[in-house]
Amino acid sequence: MSVVIVGSLAFDTIHTPFASREKILGGACTYSAIAASHFTKPLITGVVGEDFGEKEFSLLHSKKIDTSGVKKEQGKSFFWEGRYHLDMNTRDTLKTELNVFERFDPEVPESYRDVPFLFLANIDPPLQLKVLNSMRKLKFSMVDTMNLWIEIKKRELTEVFSRVDCVVLNDSEIRQFTGKANLLQGAREIQKIGPKYVIIKKGEHGASIVGRQGFYFPSASYPVEDVADPTGAGDSFAGAFIGFLAQQNKVNENTLKKALVYGNATASFTVEGFGTERISQINRRDIDNRVKAIRALSIF
Amino acid sequence: MSVVIVGSLAFDTIHTPFASREKILGGACTYSAIAASHFTKPLITGVVGEDFGEKEFSLLHSKKIDTSGVKKEQGKSFFWEGRYHLDMNTRDTLKTELNVFERFDPEVPESYRDVPFLFLANIDPPLQLKVLNSMRKLKFSMVDTMNLWIEIKKRELTEVFSRVDCVVLNDSEIRQFTGKANLLQGAREIQKIGPKYVIIKKGEHGASIVGRQGFYFPSASYPVEDVADPTGAGDSFAGAFIGFLAQQNKVNENTLKKALVYGNATASFTVEGFGTERISQINRRDIDNRVKAIRALSIF
Repeated sequence: MSVVIVGSLAFDTIHTPFASREKILGGACTYSAIAASHFTKPLITGVVGEDFGEKEFSLLHSKKIDTSGVKKEQGKSFFWEGRYHLDMNTRDTLKTELNVFERFDPEVPESYRDVPFLFLANIDPPLQLKVLNSMRKLKFSMVDTMNLWIEIKKRELTEVFSRVDCVVLNDSEIRQFTGKANLLQGAREIQKIGPKYVIIKKGEHGASIVGRQGFYFPSASYPVEDVADPTGAGDSFAGAFIGFLAQQNKVNENTLKKALVYGNATASFTVEGFGTERISQINRRDIDNRVKAIRALSIF
Repeated sequence: MSVVIVGSLAFDTIHTPFASREKILGGACTYSAIAASHFTKPLITGVVGEDFGEKEFSLLHSKKIDTSGVKKEQGKSFFWEGRYHLDMNTRDTLKTELNVFERFDPEVPESYRDVPFLFLANIDPPLQLKVLNSMRKLKFSMVDTMNLWIEIKKRELTEVFSRVDCVVLNDSEIRQFTGKANLLQGAREIQKIGPKYVIIKKGEHGASIVGRQGFYFPSASYPVEDVADPTGAGDSFAGAFIGFLAQQNKVNENTLKKALVYGNATASFTVEGFGTERISQINRRDIDNRVKAIRALSIF
């Protein structure tokens, strides 16, 4: 099965303590769609500006990503500039220019609406709701968000949470949303709103999935010694996770655990290069090999 | 085989966002010895004041901990008071009174000196060196430390590192000691000083061990929903780790991996109660069952 993904397509200027890149392809939708493309066909919805050209579309099309839901509008694409701290886990935003994203009103093409898998990457919660409302045959839907929406649109976000199967958040977002110090307690609070599953992203430490009736699975991240750029790791994780599930077309404890490991494996490639460089180069066999390596590491 | 442990025996006043306890038994040596006692016989070295009485010694003796290396001196025992933040991972130190610990000069009893396993819990590095120099038949030695010594006694600490088999540090200490953002790179830097193994403690996220020739094993922590008090989790982890190794009397990749899981399992009990409450109540079967649960969780 294929997967619909909605989120930002952007340009990023990224500074790490070791290097910088100017205006490279970025955005949550971009990362998660490329990650998902290693498993299934992603159909994406988003908005770009005039600066988003042939080069960017070619990359997406080379990954067999359906971009018929991407609107091109007058003006510039969403732009983000950030600087990572020495620990490569925390970062400061230096600039956020919404540009065409400010007026983004996602329209889900008719050809997308019967797709059973959906990933709502981080965008304004009312827009996530609009996309949800457009989908007719959902089997598994997942949502990501960010601290800003938890702060200023918690009500709308809660409504989105109530209507999806899985919420994927990082540890600090879970604490912010629920006010719970303990991540498992936080996950339980979110489950009370509706979603069966909560995925806790822990950055360099991996991710865990929390289900009901005691279902819990932690997946350590693959050890990467040379992290070039952590940008997009979480989005790649989510894209590969749902891409794998869509390909399996089966959602159960077994496929969810494997999907989590596939997510971690894919994200470990993302951080090895700047932007989408590395995750665009690899193929499914590379990911399979990394999953094998993670499996070998986990045996005791 | 048994294990020698040197470190602090103390009283702690602990505040969490949910409760407080006044002047309860604490200290790195205490936690690690009680944890190790579930696997083997710990022989401890330390100093206590007149306030460390029959009750405290009884608890240690009930765990078959040899306290013949513990000196009782005039004055009060080491005292620490701290307050945990809402996340239960970070804390502020409100008070540190060294008391008798200020003049601590560990003397390793003759009966300890041929013991093959040694854990140097966090104390002043020159004292750790003195203990190392007293040991005659070491097979496996491990050291912990803290940010203060990295800051003010790095030279002496580096000498300690150069003489042990394993260094156990938390993520921020590895970054502080090595200046490396990446924890694996940091571990490699420490290995260059001498130790074959570096254990990276990641708090609620578990721990990883880094060896040579690609040996790497991450162990996720057991999911505890109700953390009462995180104090002593790292020390319990380390004590159970070396206690398990000492009991096996074999140090290889297989036993090291298992020791890491046993360390995580034991530490998961520590945080379920205040101070040493919970870790003193449990028995080996409880720990074995938790290891089984961790194993079951890790399969995908």
